[in-house]
Amino acid sequence: MSDLQQTISQLRQALGDAQVLTGEAISPRHYSDWTRHAPACPAALLLPTSTEQVSLALRICHAAGQSVVPQGGMTGLAGGAVPRTTDIALSLDRLRGIEEIDTAAATVSVRAGTTLEDIQHAVADAGFLFPLDLGARGSCQIGGNIATNAGGNAVIRYGMTRDLVLGLEVVLADGRVLDLMNKMIKNNCGYDLKQCFIGSEGTLGVITRAVLKMAPPPAPATTLLCALPDYPSAVALLRRIQSSVGTPQAYELMWQDFFRLGVSWLEKPVAPMPDHHPLYVLLESSAPGNALEQTLEAAIEAGEVVDAILATSQAQARGLWKIREATAEFPQRMAPLNFDISLPIGRIGEFAKRCRERIDARWPGNRSVYFGHIGDSNLHLTVDCNSLPQPAPVLEIEELVYSAVGELGGAVSAEHGIGLLKREFLHHSVSAQALRVMAELKRSFDPNGILNPGKILG
Amino acid sequence: MSDLQQTISQLRQALGDAQVLTGEAISPRHYSDWTRHAPACPAALLLPTSTEQVSLALRICHAAGQSVVPQGGMTGLAGGAVPRTTDIALSLDRLRGIEEIDTAAATVSVRAGTTLEDIQHAVADAGFLFPLDLGARGSCQIGGNIATNAGGNAVIRYGMTRDLVLGLEVVLADGRVLDLMNKMIKNNCGYDLKQCFIGSEGTLGVITRAVLKMAPPPAPATTLLCALPDYPSAVALLRRIQSSVGTPQAYELMWQDFFRLGVSWLEKPVAPMPDHHPLYVLLESSAPGNALEQTLEAAIEAGEVVDAILATSQAQARGLWKIREATAEFPQRMAPLNFDISLPIGRIGEFAKRCRERIDARWPGNRSVYFGHIGDSNLHLTVDCNSLPQPAPVLEIEELVYSAVGELGGAVSAEHGIGLLKREFLHHSVSAQALRVMAELKRSFDPNGILNPGKILG
Repeated sequence: MSDLQQTISQLRQALGDAQVLTGEAISPRHYSDWTRHAPACPAALLLPTSTEQVSLALRICHAAGQSVVPQGGMTGLAGGAVPRTTDIALSLDRLRGIEEIDTAAATVSVRAGTTLEDIQHAVADAGFLFPLDLGARGSCQIGGNIATNAGGNAVIRYGMTRDLVLGLEVVLADGRVLDLMNKMIKNNCGYDLKQCFIGSEGTLGVITRAVLKMAPPPAPATTLLCALPDYPSAVALLRRIQSSVGTPQAYELMWQDFFRLGVSWLEKPVAPMPDHHPLYVLLESSAPGNALEQTLEAAIEAGEVVDAILATSQAQARGLWKIREATAEFPQRMAPLNFDISLPIGRIGEFAKRCRERIDARWPGNRSVYFGHIGDSNLHLTVDCNSLPQPAPVLEIEELVYSAVGELGGAVSAEHGIGLLKREFLHHSVSAQALRVMAELKRSFDPNGILNPGKILG
Repeated sequence: MSDLQQTISQLRQALGDAQVLTGEAISPRHYSDWTRHAPACPAALLLPTSTEQVSLALRICHAAGQSVVPQGGMTGLAGGAVPRTTDIALSLDRLRGIEEIDTAAATVSVRAGTTLEDIQHAVADAGFLFPLDLGARGSCQIGGNIATNAGGNAVIRYGMTRDLVLGLEVVLADGRVLDLMNKMIKNNCGYDLKQCFIGSEGTLGVITRAVLKMAPPPAPATTLLCALPDYPSAVALLRRIQSSVGTPQAYELMWQDFFRLGVSWLEKPVAPMPDHHPLYVLLESSAPGNALEQTLEAAIEAGEVVDAILATSQAQARGLWKIREATAEFPQRMAPLNFDISLPIGRIGEFAKRCRERIDARWPGNRSVYFGHIGDSNLHLTVDCNSLPQPAPVLEIEELVYSAVGELGGAVSAEHGIGLLKREFLHHSVSAQALRVMAELKRSFDPNGILNPGKILG
């Protein structure tokens, strides 16, 4: 019996046969994430039903030096949960459920395998809002959201996943259970160890439970589409709104190319306002209507806004959002190469210009569109590989984009993480010294290197 | 020449005589912090003028195994910056100044020795708010604020210091400079190493520079004093306000004993409303006056509020705040033993009751007062040692209070940190396993154990 087979046999004994699958019993869902990158059937799939089982499993794998790939909803966009055939996958699927909602503390305690949507619903039923929200809400699991420090739609107002986590339970590489569950906003009792695990993509420990912040329910929002003359106006308008009526719930900037594409894909492809403006912003604010209108008037007077539509009905608001939601159709209508990057807010306009010029110079006639949550410094950029010579020079485009990010002091990953897919580009944003210290931290938490090897760090 | 003398001589050579003081040249300011705990003149005081000098100094001390105590404004309340006679103190006093304000990114970049007040003023001049605020603002340094993850007056609205830090520059124990300066809200490029240093009280690295978030300037606020029938009403009122008009800027709960004490110390000791209610809350909100009044009316109808005064002038608002600010007079008017603790918000009422009963049973006739920022789960409790048998049984009271904190799942430090003074009580809030992992993290970052030894961990 090989070492691997022996480890699997030990795992069966410890966890029970029903919790250890191999071969065809493993659903292809566990082969790769939403990127479909390098799918592989792991040597075994563990489906522990308790923290204790996670602990047992890791203790065995740690002793055997057996690599383990933690898996959540498999909706990642960086290959962070993709196994190799020699890895054992550890799925949190069966560690599911909400343990407690504490309305006085405004916290919800959950098990790691609970889907984001289940948490959103339970929290809404209790009269609060769980503000983390992203497209994969129905499939992604909170453990994965935390392990990747997920971003999403509401960061400008509520922060990243990190900002919503008060406590964690984590199983360390050697099987020790670390109880960091905590309901307090303020807790300065030594090192805030939970921070190490948030965003570590399953390389430092396996998250099994969490305490999350609930927010008050949001007031009804007004939707507004504005045309802007240039990028600095997008920043000035954002700061004007924040100072006068508070931070908006959404502030989605669309460059002209994106706006035109979005409009052209509408059922009735008619732009709600002239489409010759350089930039459009779709914003949502829960400020009182008259206060928002006053702010808008001042922005028009200052030349920051050159055209505007304030949705007067839900249907009109939905129609405006339809343009921004063109992204959902990218996979069907093009061969998208998507970038998730961030830059200092003041430099995003300059970056988009520089990046576009370089791509256009290299591949004339390409189709690229720019859009982003600029209030949280996040830019997305999608290149349609169908508009490029075939086979599409993916690596060359990536190198072009990420090196431009590095030049302007940006980050090669804003909200998707590093996983496998961005590992080779990390050096554009992270110093060699910081990479060395990350490797030291990894060795401290996982001396045998069993947890998600090869993810983030080489 | 002793090893210590040899190290000091090496430091003189590397940094220059003007940057290395010994003996009487060291101001007593560097002997202890605001607690006046165990004052001692360090073997030498280093006053580096650059990150490079900090790096040189730590390289030398690391090689010599020489302990180093980082020092900021010396305003700490847990003994975290107090040296022993065998330690070398490293002051950030000369690493001072604001490097950049980026109004587009809404960030301010500073050197660690800059006072909080200097940052507040510079940011206000740029049309923003730096929301960290605490009594020591004129003396405390931002490096110390970050190293202790300071809380203060605005946490309910803006979060702890951790929530305001976007980037750091840190010198590691062995002198390596770690550049984690970052202006982006979203940055998921591997481990977020800066989190390790925030709140680590100088035991994992020396913070030399930081990038901080600036907030939009706040709208003018309304001040309101409400009398409440019981603790659950204090929570219900807070959640009602958050749902209807947004999170208040301040939500300061005062138990009857505190309220009466505060009133009795006023220039004209007349209560602004009857003083027989169990609880009073002083709150500030920037919501429009009519919306706030509507919310207040609903709260009165629901029985959450039994009496209320809405300040109609700045002078009246100042008068109401005067009662809460009785804390500033504690050192002059009593022998205060202050507690800074946190509990799940729903359990603070229960804790105050339990704790008071135990203290009263043990020391009848003692004077204790309860107050807190309950919106961020923070309770303060002050016992007047003059009201106790002499010498006051400080350790016994501490053990009583902190063990009650542990019983209810609270934290023995909410915002002041652990330092030396709370180290022996840490086990009431932190599991043995977590303490072990903290020690492992410490060893990973500081294998020779030179950085602030004995602080947080034994």
